[in-house]
Amino acid sequence: MNLNNNKSKIKILISKKTGKTYYSDILKDFHCKEGFIKKEDLSSNERIIYSNINREFLMFEASNYDYALKIKRGPQIILPKDLGYIISRTRVNKEFKIVEAGGGSGGATSFFAGIAKKVHTYEIIKENYELIKKNLEYLKIKNVKLTKGDLTEHIEKEKDIDLLFLDMPDPKIILEKNLSGIKNGHYIVCYLPSISQISDLVNFIESVEYLYFEEISEIILRHWKINSRISRPEHRKEIDHTAFLVFIRKI
Amino acid sequence: MNLNNNKSKIKILISKKTGKTYYSDILKDFHCKEGFIKKEDLSSNERIIYSNINREFLMFEASNYDYALKIKRGPQIILPKDLGYIISRTRVNKEFKIVEAGGGSGGATSFFAGIAKKVHTYEIIKENYELIKKNLEYLKIKNVKLTKGDLTEHIEKEKDIDLLFLDMPDPKIILEKNLSGIKNGHYIVCYLPSISQISDLVNFIESVEYLYFEEISEIILRHWKINSRISRPEHRKEIDHTAFLVFIRKI
Amino acid sequence: MNLNNNKSKIKILISKKTGKTYYSDILKDFHCKEGFIKKEDLSSNERIIYSNINREFLMFEASNYDYALKIKRGPQIILPKDLGYIISRTRVNKEFKIVEAGGGSGGATSFFAGIAKKVHTYEIIKENYELIKKNLEYLKIKNVKLTKGDLTEHIEKEKDIDLLFLDMPDPKIILEKNLSGIKNGHYIVCYLPSISQISDLVNFIESVEYLYFEEISEIILRHWKINSRISRPEHRKEIDHTAFLVFIRKI
Amino acid sequence: MNLNNNKSKIKILISKKTGKTYYSDILKDFHCKEGFIKKEDLSSNERIIYSNINREFLMFEASNYDYALKIKRGPQIILPKDLGYIISRTRVNKEFKIVEAGGGSGGATSFFAGIAKKVHTYEIIKENYELIKKNLEYLKIKNVKLTKGDLTEHIEKEKDIDLLFLDMPDPKIILEKNLSGIKNGHYIVCYLPSISQISDLVNFIESVEYLYFEEISEIILRHWKINSRISRPEHRKEIDHTAFLVFIRKI
Repeated sequence: MNLNNNKSKIKILISKKTGKTYYSDILKDFHCKEGFIKKEDLSSNERIIYSNINREFLMFEASNYDYALKIKRGPQIILPKDLGYIISRTRVNKEFKIVEAGGGSGGATSFFAGIAKKVHTYEIIKENYELIKKNLEYLKIKNVKLTKGDLTEHIEKEKDIDLLFLDMPDPKIILEKNLSGIKNGHYIVCYLPSISQISDLVNFIESVEYLYFEEISEIILRHWKINSRISRPEHRKEIDHTAFLVFIRKI
Repeated sequence: MNLNNNKSKIKILISKKTGKTYYSDILKDFHCKEGFIKKEDLSSNERIIYSNINREFLMFEASNYDYALKIKRGPQIILPKDLGYIISRTRVNKEFKIVEAGGGSGGATSFFAGIAKKVHTYEIIKENYELIKKNLEYLKIKNVKLTKGDLTEHIEKEKDIDLLFLDMPDPKIILEKNLSGIKNGHYIVCYLPSISQISDLVNFIESVEYLYFEEISEIILRHWKINSRISRPEHRKEIDHTAFLVFIRKI
Repeated sequence: MNLNNNKSKIKILISKKTGKTYYSDILKDFHCKEGFIKKEDLSSNERIIYSNINREFLMFEASNYDYALKIKRGPQIILPKDLGYIISRTRVNKEFKIVEAGGGSGGATSFFAGIAKKVHTYEIIKENYELIKKNLEYLKIKNVKLTKGDLTEHIEKEKDIDLLFLDMPDPKIILEKNLSGIKNGHYIVCYLPSISQISDLVNFIESVEYLYFEEISEIILRHWKINSRISRPEHRKEIDHTAFLVFIRKI
Repeated sequence: MNLNNNKSKIKILISKKTGKTYYSDILKDFHCKEGFIKKEDLSSNERIIYSNINREFLMFEASNYDYALKIKRGPQIILPKDLGYIISRTRVNKEFKIVEAGGGSGGATSFFAGIAKKVHTYEIIKENYELIKKNLEYLKIKNVKLTKGDLTEHIEKEKDIDLLFLDMPDPKIILEKNLSGIKNGHYIVCYLPSISQISDLVNFIESVEYLYFEEISEIILRHWKINSRISRPEHRKEIDHTAFLVFIRKI
């Protein structure tokens, strides 16, 4: 985990006039519509910095969250509101081994990798596989094993799984397999956009002895705008429906 | 982090007839209204187990989440929906040093400790301090430094803070201090139940140069009941309002 | 519509000390744990009134809403949040003829009757029928025709329907009938608690030519507590899930 | 109330291919990108109709709701979710006299007029006044008295008010006046977008004897997409934050 090395590379610039946020690489001079800033200035510790046309910018270092926002996105990414609840509801810790099917663009993968000991990600689509690989390299993440392939064919060989995360339309095809590689009492989390998918899944779970269905949750995020005059939910910044989270236990 | 040692100690029992969930210590015989189970049976790997009066129970091992639910609670606990978003929005990872004021009963503390490298918790109330200490011992958490005292008096000595978490009614008294111990670009998260508290806080933040106000979020959790016949939000199991989360960056 | 005659009969009393709300009939002396008030005093125009043990009460006249809260309740009542949206989304006005199946305890019936020209309510269960009858009498509502019977058997005889409201688990049994009594372009609204019920219904609607499926809505009500110090959503006063509203047009 | 006369004038056309909804005046031929339909055909009772380029359309009559959607909009309109709850929570009926300040573009006005006996609307801005006037004419509404002026100067002359509706940033300027024209126990409803506005208002209400503060509500509307395969909340069709509704009683 050496994101910290990365961190010296990007600075956040926020224009006082427009409120716009820019990401600048400190190894290069920065250009935007609001002017030009030399790389020497980007490396300074100043909080307030001025472009050549005298526009004022707030300047500070990029966080892990900023780096995560910068990864290349292919398929729809899983949002922090959902990722966070998966972690807190299954109580992931730094001893965990997580196995994941449907890596997408590596958003969940890289978040899990920052927390867990080891993540093993299966991705069946070549373009996504290449994207995840590139994003993990960009974020300098070392504790992810990335397999191009179908978890259905590999789940029975996986051992000592602390958390199985399934971002796929029909998780039943995995859950029908021998799941003895998942630790007793531990969680399988399914990420499913539609109620009808969950209905099918729950029916299946109730028909087998080795799975216990524990919770279906939906996380709704609301942003607020609060200052000295205004205090109300943001207009048109609500995060819409993403998916429901289904928590199942291996028994 | 050796919660795993713990894990052999508690088994979850779910009654087929009543649906009730029981926690049983495998070192002791288990008694409840639905009968008696010997400790030898609790230690077995059976999924289905019967009490002396022939009641059927599903049996599996407690998860970290179950252990966390079992800690003694004094003041109101911060819920997984909020804890998860703090982690995912600030992108906490296993290299983080977290400093926290207002430990409560140690719920957030123990969750953070499972993920971060080091947590330093300040708690001003003696009863709460003792409760946190006991809960951290129960959960066998070793990477928390617990200080009985007021963070206001100590914040200027803290160094290399990756995340500052403030669960206190008036976080301004901390934010007025010299915050050079917080890394540039990193987050301060305030947990505040009331809009009026946030309004005051935002006014203060906008008056100082070294803080950048980034986001106010509210996380709403909705549980669903879905089976072959029913698919609707749970009645009366919604988690109510807890608090708003304010994300501020040190610059 | 002579609810106004009623209105002189009940006064609201709110205790200054306990904040409790009492309903008092002005034709009778009022007794509660906080003392005794004579009927002569209840008829006065005073805003502040004192019981014999000197407890202070705010006093004012009951509104239509208060009278509606006082009706006897059998089956679950449809809440204002849902009733209001039915009215505003279908734009009910005082020229409307509404036909309703599943009267429950007459909550929706009496609300509709206050607005529409005429309401025709079908209720199949004897106890509910008697309850609705009693409640309509109590509220002195005259423009409701109440039929003990199954709308399935009567819908083909109904004429000039402006709005058909179906509060029943399987509205399809009505929608399969000849619906030429519903005006062209007008609405059928179904009140259904479960997504799976709606899924079945929508499939049916899409299979027939004379119905157009327009909208499925869920109304969520949130109460707030705001005063000089506090401003947050109410704890444990949120109204839970009731049902989804399905808007269909007759064509 | 003769919206029904209007109703023969507009037909709804929904394209089978694109799903697009068109409004067509039956007195004119209809033209769109999907072809041409003669006015004689628009007047027919056919459900399915074809354009000259053989595109299929579902055809049915406009509802009151459709007419309301067609009015010219100036300032932001109050949405059905909020209008409905105002009606149901204060139990408006066809005997009501409603007084309203801040008519906007007449959306609330025309909705109230369909239900109440009489609506008296005050609008201070000339452009809005003209817009409301035009919209009421278009909708053929006769029971609204529209005054160009400031309610602050007229409220003390108004009599027998059943509901006072205030859509204005600082309703206190009205509430400070002599409100004896509002019936005892009846409601004043304020429509306020920001928590801070409500906080000020509640402080004022608690300082006077003749007002009782009853409820602050927020109505959240969620649209669902449900068919044979999909069942989930709509993406990006959620209705955002509009305003909070404050219910106050005159005593």
